[in-house]
Amino acid sequence: MKKTVMTAAVLAALTSSLSFADEGMWQPHQLPELESILKAKGLSIDAKSIARLTEFPMNAVISLGGCTASFVSAQGLAVTNHHCAYGSIQYNSTAKNNLLANGFLAKKHSDELPAAPGSRIYVTEEVKNVTADINQELSASLQGKARFDKIDELRKGIVADCEQSKGYRCDVYSFHGGLEYYLIKQLEIKDVRLVHAPASGVGKFGGDIDNWMWPRHTGDYSFYRAYVGPDGKPAEFDKANKPFTPPSFLKVSAQGVKENDFVMVIGYPGRTNRYNTASEVRNQFTQQLPVSRDYREQLIALIQQHAPEGSETRIKYESTLAGLANYAKNFTGMIQTYQSGTTQQRKDDAEKALNAWINAEPARKAKYAPALLELENLIKAGQTYQQRDLILGYFASAQLFNTASRLYRWSHEQQKPDAERESGYQQRDAVRLEAGLKRLSRNFDPAIDLEIALHFLGLYAQLPAEQRLPAFDAYFGLDKAAFDAKQMRERLSKLYQATSLADEASRLAWVGKSVADFKASKDPMIQYAVAMFDTEMQLENAQKERAGQLAVARPKAMEAVIAYNKSLGKPVYADANSTLRVTYGTVQGYQPKDGVLYTPFTTVAGISAKATGVDPFDAPKAQLEAIAKGDFAGYTAKELGTLPVNFLSNVDTTGGNSGSPTLNGKAEFVGLLFDGVIEGIIGNFDYDAALNRSIHVDSRYMLWQMEKVDGAKHLLDEMTIVR
Amino acid sequence: MKKTVMTAAVLAALTSSLSFADEGMWQPHQLPELESILKAKGLSIDAKSIARLTEFPMNAVISLGGCTASFVSAQGLAVTNHHCAYGSIQYNSTAKNNLLANGFLAKKHSDELPAAPGSRIYVTEEVKNVTADINQELSASLQGKARFDKIDELRKGIVADCEQSKGYRCDVYSFHGGLEYYLIKQLEIKDVRLVHAPASGVGKFGGDIDNWMWPRHTGDYSFYRAYVGPDGKPAEFDKANKPFTPPSFLKVSAQGVKENDFVMVIGYPGRTNRYNTASEVRNQFTQQLPVSRDYREQLIALIQQHAPEGSETRIKYESTLAGLANYAKNFTGMIQTYQSGTTQQRKDDAEKALNAWINAEPARKAKYAPALLELENLIKAGQTYQQRDLILGYFASAQLFNTASRLYRWSHEQQKPDAERESGYQQRDAVRLEAGLKRLSRNFDPAIDLEIALHFLGLYAQLPAEQRLPAFDAYFGLDKAAFDAKQMRERLSKLYQATSLADEASRLAWVGKSVADFKASKDPMIQYAVAMFDTEMQLENAQKERAGQLAVARPKAMEAVIAYNKSLGKPVYADANSTLRVTYGTVQGYQPKDGVLYTPFTTVAGISAKATGVDPFDAPKAQLEAIAKGDFAGYTAKELGTLPVNFLSNVDTTGGNSGSPTLNGKAEFVGLLFDGVIEGIIGNFDYDAALNRSIHVDSRYMLWQMEKVDGAKHLLDEMTIVR
Repeated sequence: MKKTVMTAAVLAALTSSLSFADEGMWQPHQLPELESILKAKGLSIDAKSIARLTEFPMNAVISLGGCTASFVSAQGLAVTNHHCAYGSIQYNSTAKNNLLANGFLAKKHSDELPAAPGSRIYVTEEVKNVTADINQELSASLQGKARFDKIDELRKGIVADCEQSKGYRCDVYSFHGGLEYYLIKQLEIKDVRLVHAPASGVGKFGGDIDNWMWPRHTGDYSFYRAYVGPDGKPAEFDKANKPFTPPSFLKVSAQGVKENDFVMVIGYPGRTNRYNTASEVRNQFTQQLPVSRDYREQLIALIQQHAPEGSETRIKYESTLAGLANYAKNFTGMIQTYQSGTTQQRKDDAEKALNAWINAEPARKAKYAPALLELENLIKAGQTYQQRDLILGYFASAQLFNTASRLYRWSHEQQKPDAERESGYQQRDAVRLEAGLKRLSRNFDPAIDLEIALHFLGLYAQLPAEQRLPAFDAYFGLDKAAFDAKQMRERLSKLYQATSLADEASRLAWVGKSVADFKASKDPMIQYAVAMFDTEMQLENAQKERAGQLAVARPKAMEAVIAYNKSLGKPVYADANSTLRVTYGTVQGYQPKDGVLYTPFTTVAGISAKATGVDPFDAPKAQLEAIAKGDFAGYTAKELGTLPVNFLSNVDTTGGNSGSPTLNGKAEFVGLLFDGVIEGIIGNFDYDAALNRSIHVDSRYMLWQMEKVDGAKHLLDEMTIVR
Repeated sequence: MKKTVMTAAVLAALTSSLSFADEGMWQPHQLPELESILKAKGLSIDAKSIARLTEFPMNAVISLGGCTASFVSAQGLAVTNHHCAYGSIQYNSTAKNNLLANGFLAKKHSDELPAAPGSRIYVTEEVKNVTADINQELSASLQGKARFDKIDELRKGIVADCEQSKGYRCDVYSFHGGLEYYLIKQLEIKDVRLVHAPASGVGKFGGDIDNWMWPRHTGDYSFYRAYVGPDGKPAEFDKANKPFTPPSFLKVSAQGVKENDFVMVIGYPGRTNRYNTASEVRNQFTQQLPVSRDYREQLIALIQQHAPEGSETRIKYESTLAGLANYAKNFTGMIQTYQSGTTQQRKDDAEKALNAWINAEPARKAKYAPALLELENLIKAGQTYQQRDLILGYFASAQLFNTASRLYRWSHEQQKPDAERESGYQQRDAVRLEAGLKRLSRNFDPAIDLEIALHFLGLYAQLPAEQRLPAFDAYFGLDKAAFDAKQMRERLSKLYQATSLADEASRLAWVGKSVADFKASKDPMIQYAVAMFDTEMQLENAQKERAGQLAVARPKAMEAVIAYNKSLGKPVYADANSTLRVTYGTVQGYQPKDGVLYTPFTTVAGISAKATGVDPFDAPKAQLEAIAKGDFAGYTAKELGTLPVNFLSNVDTTGGNSGSPTLNGKAEFVGLLFDGVIEGIIGNFDYDAALNRSIHVDSRYMLWQMEKVDGAKHLLDEMTIVR
């Protein structure tokens, strides 16, 4: 699935379809409550230790921002998924020296390559409940945008205080749609280097064809190393930097797991919507997802057409294409599962049951019913312009327009004191902004950008008048003449020729310029940003108004849901929100359809059977020879009589969990989570115990490939291998 | 697979890869030798009874010529596959009253419809070893064509004697490439009527997409009834005819089978090549099959292009298309399995082992080595013109040319005494000839016929000069000008306009005309037949010369193979040759690939999951409602908790076995064999115990669908159901 966070994901929550089974993405502090279950399942370390973030194994698990990783040596060696390190491998690749195709292995520290600009390693050191700090400042009269702004101001204040500690990044996360707030403090390591990645024929074996699929044979692992300044503190890349000494690291098992073994996964799941209302689910699966899927497929076709395979341009867009295809497939799978399954029916039923419970007691009814009604109205109101918002959202894939708008907004925000600036435009975000402006040089081509803009302008032009934005119409001349593709292409061509934003130095030069500078500019992209600014602010303020209203209705509704679940004796976990979670379960297969069983392990025999020599089934020759030779000594799974490659478990994961270590009951690293199965793909909305399966790289396969094929024995020597 | 006999199948045999397991298509007389194995596996009736053709259950199993069927009532009711009755359902279908789409059910005898012209039911009554009768007439000096002709004459003589009994059809079959000959005498029932066929959405559910595939959900069954004259003897269709009283019939089990249960299948497997030489196998998989597959796919594309879906023309070609697609898929599967598997290696190794065994002893070497060498030379010689022969073979799919040639040959053969006529052109074949000429009206369209001819003429024209046939070149003007598609289309158009053979009455009128009448004809198709006659006879005689030589070399080589296998303690069965065979095994699933298991049963849940409402997944609404209702009383599989649809077993079957009854240890009907799985598709050449699986319709599904959905309760009442 290439678990990076879904951008368009809807926040928040209402009715729960929480089943028992191994469902649940638990906050570490909840684990002691679950101790008896965990012990019965096979956990042998103290469950309370998992609740303590500054102890082993929790402090060995790190975030890459969108992916998870874990330390596996005392010298800051970190393992994550190949697809999580993909941007860094791509960043260091050229048509001549194609690390994606050939893989990469640093023989010594000085050979290690800088990761893509902006790459970070975050080590969570503190999680603190700050709900009271926020709620005590919110009077009942504070409503709509004013309430939103106040919450925003309070969160920023808490973050700013926390970031007084140099080298830390802090964030306040909302749980249960604003029922609770937690401050999370993370050490921010800024010098991240690429140590090892297998060839794509291993790390991406099966590619988009096998993505979300079982049986799977992907060696989806790569290694980074964290570096800090000579003083041991986070520092920007510098040759004088030293490997970071992590507070702890995971031992790597060469023994692996077998069917029914206990496993747990620690990581940073991005976003789930398990508590969405029935109407939100309906809208999601019948409107949002089908349209988004179509737009993604149109984008893929456009890019493939204009960036021929093998070209430098295509290399620039490989990562974008992978992301588009990944979620196009994801969306298709979700839509199909929704259409053929009973999700909507069960959501409707659950909502009815919740309402019946609320209405059964007058006090309860008085307490919750108005909030539920208000929530439903706010949801409906928020969908009024969703068709336009989707088109404009995908129009922003035309990166130059989007970049111009961000730069102009930056200049506006700089006029305010730092604490009052919009999130994403504060001083702390400056590095990210610059990294993004630089990264553009690697993944952008003006001709393709133009085609993307043209395509979505065509779709926009078909919107009914009441959905259109006058400023947008005026800028593109759509107020004067109907859309004509040929004329619009000419107009855009002139515009792309005239702008200097395609040049990296010119882009960077705009950072720090004044609003007046922007207004005076003749650059047509900058003029676009200026022309759209007021409209964008109006849209944003309207959204904040609604968010402020939701910040009252959602928590109240979630309170009802939690109370209802408690009345049924069900524990409740919060929807995923990119914060550190623990999920547990067992190694097990599943029945994907009538007449078919998927067994929990694949083996190297499956690699040889799938190998065609052609991408994405281009297993390297050396690997195929090693498989044929059959020397799996030290890594054989006794039950299988051969070397396992991937395995299935029922742990509850989602995008963001990618790269998470999979641990056995002793907290040893036995695998690397990297995907979920298509049959369980609706899991972000609706967990199905029979079909929800995660896919892991087996540690034995990783170690074997590194030792016997890729000559990475020195990395094995650096790690602590449990044999 | 739609098991109808492969036309292009190569005869004969050499090295065996016979494994133990449940491999083997046994001649009934061999069964007593296998009694202890059968008893251990679960046979509860007397194994010797299966050796006796005139007793239950053997005399309940009948041949349809290309398919198998079995009697299931005392009133001549016979069950076979939907795809075996397909031609008859199609024959009675019109665009207005589409029995293929809607199914058919006769409520009473008088509603039953005549099967397609030429439909027959054959009841085997006698199998007699006539090897000695033939061999005693063959002197060593009789070689080549003379030997072939003598064997042919002897076989015809034996057949003619046998057919003195009115109402019988006899044939002499060669076993082990001519090592043994058996006379088989069959009662020939000529009045066959269609009683019941489910809708295509049941009987052909999954269509070409699911063909050869597991998981499978096809209700591939249909019912015929055998009728005889008022005197109880076979007679042509007549309203006064009465249902035939079979000597025995099968009881139908409503209890079904479960995993690991013993099953046996009795039927008429068409052709296997398990004893082909290594070089024959290599030629088959690297030359014959890839080219044939391409030609079939080209034919399919041509027909689909020129006969739009839903047109009357398309209805005419549906059966042809189904056959083409079926074997195109079959060939593709075989080629893939060959390429990815070790078949060739094992054939090569087995041949080496055989040769080593032969050469290990001087006497043995003297006895067998020359025959093996001779066989190899003959095989090579036979491949000289295979490229041309394949093209001309597929050119014959242009049915008018082929029909003209057959009519002219008929006229030639009529000049000889009946016994001396070529097989297929004797008096006994007259009815088949006429039926074929009539059937043409239902499955032929001149415009499409023309396109087929044009296509293969284009391929023929690319052959090197030494492969070309002067008479063929001359007739199509290819001796004067290079092939030009436009000009050739014009030439063919004139030809198709001028011929009267597209008219049924005109075609039939040619039967009985003299050679002189043909020679004098101005009909261009008849002129084609006359022009090609001498060339065709030359080719045929050369083939007979080689066949006569093979008739010496093959049996000798097979003698060596049998002796070698005996030295290893392995029993030997003959390759399938359309004669009655018994195969046994157990109900079991398999592992199609790494990480996946196929379970032995599918269930009705799979029908609902696959159903789209669109062909080939157009399960009828009434069926889907009945499944949703869940009333499976009397037919539930206890282990599954629901109604099974299809099941897998490891019985050893091939094309021709289609429609064979699947029996439990008590010889009760528990299913209907109808397909094999694609992973075992190379089985005709190479049996793999891990992957060779047959697919059966579960009797419980058939009974449930008939009783609860299709209102065929009167047919259940007519059968003896074991509950």
